[in-house]
Amino acid sequence: MTAAAAQPLRLGIAGLGTVGIGVVKIVQRHADLLAARSGRPVVITAVSARDRTKNRDADLSGYAWETDPVALALRDDVDVLVEVMGGHEGPAKDATEAALKAGKDVVTANKALLAHHGQALAELAEGLGRVIRYEAAVAGGIPVIKALTEGLAGNQIRRVMGVMNGTCNYILTRMETAGLPYETVFEEARQLGYLEADPNLDVGGIDAGHKLSILASIAFGTKVSFANVVLEGIGCISIDDIRRAGDMGYKIKLLGVAQMTGRGLEQRMMPCLVPAASPLGQLQGGTNMVVIEGDSVGQIVLRGAGAGEGPTASAVMGDVLDIARGLRLPTFGQPAAGLADPIPAAVSAPAPYYLRLELMDKPGALAKVAAVLGEAGVSISRMRQYGHEDTSAPVLIVTHKTTRDAIDVAIAALPATGVVLGAPVALRIEEV
Amino acid sequence: MTAAAAQPLRLGIAGLGTVGIGVVKIVQRHADLLAARSGRPVVITAVSARDRTKNRDADLSGYAWETDPVALALRDDVDVLVEVMGGHEGPAKDATEAALKAGKDVVTANKALLAHHGQALAELAEGLGRVIRYEAAVAGGIPVIKALTEGLAGNQIRRVMGVMNGTCNYILTRMETAGLPYETVFEEARQLGYLEADPNLDVGGIDAGHKLSILASIAFGTKVSFANVVLEGIGCISIDDIRRAGDMGYKIKLLGVAQMTGRGLEQRMMPCLVPAASPLGQLQGGTNMVVIEGDSVGQIVLRGAGAGEGPTASAVMGDVLDIARGLRLPTFGQPAAGLADPIPAAVSAPAPYYLRLELMDKPGALAKVAAVLGEAGVSISRMRQYGHEDTSAPVLIVTHKTTRDAIDVAIAALPATGVVLGAPVALRIEEV
Repeated sequence: MTAAAAQPLRLGIAGLGTVGIGVVKIVQRHADLLAARSGRPVVITAVSARDRTKNRDADLSGYAWETDPVALALRDDVDVLVEVMGGHEGPAKDATEAALKAGKDVVTANKALLAHHGQALAELAEGLGRVIRYEAAVAGGIPVIKALTEGLAGNQIRRVMGVMNGTCNYILTRMETAGLPYETVFEEARQLGYLEADPNLDVGGIDAGHKLSILASIAFGTKVSFANVVLEGIGCISIDDIRRAGDMGYKIKLLGVAQMTGRGLEQRMMPCLVPAASPLGQLQGGTNMVVIEGDSVGQIVLRGAGAGEGPTASAVMGDVLDIARGLRLPTFGQPAAGLADPIPAAVSAPAPYYLRLELMDKPGALAKVAAVLGEAGVSISRMRQYGHEDTSAPVLIVTHKTTRDAIDVAIAALPATGVVLGAPVALRIEEV
Repeated sequence: MTAAAAQPLRLGIAGLGTVGIGVVKIVQRHADLLAARSGRPVVITAVSARDRTKNRDADLSGYAWETDPVALALRDDVDVLVEVMGGHEGPAKDATEAALKAGKDVVTANKALLAHHGQALAELAEGLGRVIRYEAAVAGGIPVIKALTEGLAGNQIRRVMGVMNGTCNYILTRMETAGLPYETVFEEARQLGYLEADPNLDVGGIDAGHKLSILASIAFGTKVSFANVVLEGIGCISIDDIRRAGDMGYKIKLLGVAQMTGRGLEQRMMPCLVPAASPLGQLQGGTNMVVIEGDSVGQIVLRGAGAGEGPTASAVMGDVLDIARGLRLPTFGQPAAGLADPIPAAVSAPAPYYLRLELMDKPGALAKVAAVLGEAGVSISRMRQYGHEDTSAPVLIVTHKTTRDAIDVAIAALPATGVVLGAPVALRIEEV
């Protein structure tokens, strides 16, 4: 151990919300453990938040206070900026850039910042010999960035999948277990404080899409490309779909999938059916799961809490300790300057689909639907017709493997049959 | 990127069995990927195995050949010894020590070597400024050593659990699904080549115990202490136990548990019941699972292939790339010289137990058993009596939380009742 290595690593914490306070608690509680594991003391020298008077669940009296996170980032007694404010523009971005330019490393939990500015920030950091670490940005306490960037680095990655928004998974599992409609559970989640200020970040799949775009960059050596993530939220999912998918042996999850296909990089975050008995199908409530498939390792499944003070702070501290130990890697696992511009591919891999449509009680109705599907090249694997309510009845169809294009052609042709009420629901069945 | 960093990293592969050939294939197939990710070429310069004439599924013509792995370790054109021979004495140990003393780093898949000599090897390596990496030694392709040593390093670890011997899990799940007795499935496994030359390494829990002792050292900052692992194999598990545990909502797994208790370090590898619906309960066949519980992160579950060419070689290459990238850590996550001597604790944490006993068809028999349990302080949570065959009937009991000591007292007192046939089976029910 050289004398230089035994110097304390000095953190400046920008943001004193749940995650920031969680980090403060770990540093205070585990000083000896952190020093033993990193070979040097890990200390906090300064913190930053807008409101100094707010009552927080930690003793901050030993730390310098900066109202401006950029001023925090520039302090001489800060080696690492821990950015846990959130937001992809404004203070978070300004402080991150200021820290890098001032020769400091950055640990962040900010998925939006990386999804929107990851490439520019990585180039900035690497040009200056600094590192940006962001384990806490994806899937909370699960060390998935480390697994993908380091542990599985000997693999050509084939596919990355994940349930990475705990709020959506909470809503979907609560709808199922309590038999409540989407709107009711959405309102419950809002009252429990599970939803972002803009709930579309959660239920629209944006937050999870941010995370997926980061994983895809590491997995496939491409520039982060959030704009190319095909996003569908969970607002279209009815309690009927959840029940009927269940009857057929499936669960509905907001599932992210990234894979490199012959036509380019496919990134999608959308509700899918997965087998009820699969690890993804069994995921309950706010827990996250990431599935990584590599050419040598096969399938690795990682499961844990996706949010919360402890899990997120655990991920931040993993990054801090890496820096304290001198582990330094390019942001996305290889030099940012060499990352490829991804060619965005549509959802191209064929898959079975789940179709739910409302069939009118007319002679030959089912035959007309089957004919339309057949003309679109969609063949039926399983079908269930439920009892009639009034003059129509729900029909569920699980198709053989087909393309989204073929499904869309069929759906477009269904109204002309005159036997289908309303808009059919079509959900991909992901093989997991 | 400095010029020095762009020097190739030169590997010497000692052992050309399944894992060694897997490593050769990855290095040959993914030269560009490995160079992009590590910032330098990763090449093989020399290999070693006993029999040069054996036909192997890879082109080795470009590599120097050494019959003696120590000679391989000492070659000037080898930077890293990749030890994938196995065995905890003899050539594997000799080559590892020789490599470290010659200033080379070591990547090994050898759990027995680390379980028996981990402390001495770590002290040797750290005294010389070298690293020993061993991701492949525990749970095959799952990056669990990295998760525990690095990703979760901000946590005080509370418990580590795992199903880490794929052969045992294969045998137990095959017994259940095919309804076959232990002896038959054991023989099947032998013919499929799933068993070690000494099958007791697998079914006796020794191999899994080696892995557990390594995880415990990292988790709790103690010297590796395989001698203190309480080992019970799966030979005592009958198809009846599997079926009846299933009736009560449980699966039987060879489960390793390590935790630091008030009385010391508890390490045990033994058949346990786990809830059928838990991630561990749902684990089928040869797949491995490790569960890590930390004070901040909560519970993290990692799942993947525990053996095989690709998964094990993937883990070896993760370590090789870490070394190529300059990531250097003490063997067990903190300096070996500072690791504590663990105080071994017996299986102390109270738990519910599963008891199966054969009750004779006599008046008041059940009351006598209940009385003996009560006197030992064991209270009954659930009980099932099955139909009589001839003059006796199996009785299953799930107890409330109790200690192994109390269970042993009860079992010792049961023969004197005169109503119990044969030896009762007692298995711990682990809360997971």
